[in-house]
Amino acid sequence: MNEESFVRKLSLLFPQSPDVRVGPGDDCAVLDFGAPDFILAAVDQVISEVHYTRDTPPEAVAGKLLKRNVSDIAAMGGVPTHALLSLAVCPMDESWLLAFHRGIAECAGSYGISVIGGDMAKLFAPGEALSLTILGKVGRSRLCLRSNAREGDCLFATGRFGNSFRSGHHLNFVPRLKEARFLAGGFTRAMQDVSDGLLKDAGRLAAASGLALLLEPEKIPLRAGATLESALAEGEDYELLFAVPEHLRARLENDWPFPDTELNCIGRFAGGDPGTVSGLKQNQINTGYDHFR
Amino acid sequence: MNEESFVRKLSLLFPQSPDVRVGPGDDCAVLDFGAPDFILAAVDQVISEVHYTRDTPPEAVAGKLLKRNVSDIAAMGGVPTHALLSLAVCPMDESWLLAFHRGIAECAGSYGISVIGGDMAKLFAPGEALSLTILGKVGRSRLCLRSNAREGDCLFATGRFGNSFRSGHHLNFVPRLKEARFLAGGFTRAMQDVSDGLLKDAGRLAAASGLALLLEPEKIPLRAGATLESALAEGEDYELLFAVPEHLRARLENDWPFPDTELNCIGRFAGGDPGTVSGLKQNQINTGYDHFR
Repeated sequence: MNEESFVRKLSLLFPQSPDVRVGPGDDCAVLDFGAPDFILAAVDQVISEVHYTRDTPPEAVAGKLLKRNVSDIAAMGGVPTHALLSLAVCPMDESWLLAFHRGIAECAGSYGISVIGGDMAKLFAPGEALSLTILGKVGRSRLCLRSNAREGDCLFATGRFGNSFRSGHHLNFVPRLKEARFLAGGFTRAMQDVSDGLLKDAGRLAAASGLALLLEPEKIPLRAGATLESALAEGEDYELLFAVPEHLRARLENDWPFPDTELNCIGRFAGGDPGTVSGLKQNQINTGYDHFR
Repeated sequence: MNEESFVRKLSLLFPQSPDVRVGPGDDCAVLDFGAPDFILAAVDQVISEVHYTRDTPPEAVAGKLLKRNVSDIAAMGGVPTHALLSLAVCPMDESWLLAFHRGIAECAGSYGISVIGGDMAKLFAPGEALSLTILGKVGRSRLCLRSNAREGDCLFATGRFGNSFRSGHHLNFVPRLKEARFLAGGFTRAMQDVSDGLLKDAGRLAAASGLALLLEPEKIPLRAGATLESALAEGEDYELLFAVPEHLRARLENDWPFPDTELNCIGRFAGGDPGTVSGLKQNQINTGYDHFR
């Protein structure tokens, strides 16, 4: 069984109460506590030897952990507000832990995020398993969901793809928070971030919307040193994928206020078997990162 | 440096925004999103070889992880509402993971908790680091804080103490949710749960309230097989400690509607050096579980 189908199987175990507007399966869960805004919640982790090498400075590990969670909030059209840390580490090295927490504090401060709690415990083997839960909020009319793409919408992407790990992008990326806020202001209601690979994540956006996707691989912008294959499959890009109705396309391209962030239409949503992606040559097809392999 | 002072040092790194009514240092953080109730948030983890032995059934591990988080919500006077899972495991054993998630689902269902998201990743060494974030809510007038004890209040405790690990109590305990709801209805505004040891946690309640505590060790009820020393220091009791004004004491003891849950006054809050606990013989003093030792 692959990760996708196993996670789907697991999600069937969990009924959702009426205040859960969106449960597992999007970038964040969406909760309605009766506050003016919807509340967003997500959790993500980084693990030594998996998400970073042992020689990565603790401040950079902290930044990656927080920013990949901020990227999930951005993809919903929201703003991050609060974070909780859960750290399993061995040894309990105070200088490492202090540097890590300083990295979290600096990064959280730059986004206005309050770190409201945490837990720290000793792991049974040398290394770290570091988890962060992020909360955020989003105006009810600005919420972006994977399921909101419509037939005929353009698939847009911010930034460039591929070669994230070797280039250091996976550590020094800037989550597309301001871009996402702009987009949620009227250009899209269907967005997600790319963490597990462009092809896999684009397929998820299409699948959630009950649509197929015609990708134009020659339009996918490559990060320095990247091949198309790595751009499609490697992941950790933390760019946005989003659906834009055809009638808004020209205005978006004209009004885009972020000269340092590339904006490209790389495909189109179409009727067809939900989640299928066409337009690729056989040798370009790779399913992206699977935690079960 | 011990855990207490290191965590205090870390908490100074993190400024809190105005919507954070209570930040790190209580059983849960308390957030005001403008909803009718306050929102509660906490995170806690269990780690193989630390919080359970390798032969513990995955369903029991799941129950412990969820219930110790429910106990944190209970201690604030609240009700749990939502949970997010973050699992680092090796190997990615589907049958173990499925049984674990079934355990979470069954336990969450019994408390009306919706499991709204999660993350799963491979750990670098065999074993598990399992984290759960819990959200809850509490009526604004029912919120219980560690800092709310007053001079002269009685220190009450539910249940019995000690010998939690060997007796299996650390797996099969029932969080004191209904008891806490009753108490928050008018008998206390100062409560916490006992996870790191009665003496340490009672001292925290006193310290947060700026008070000293006179403990009456002969009044502490012992779990079968427990010594007073283990009752004071071992932890994982998941009982409630709470402060009750003297004028409510008789009514509480008279009205207590839970015949299966012991209720005992085991001490009294008094002026003095905040957090100091007196009434113990020298050989009874042990600081409880410290993750840094």
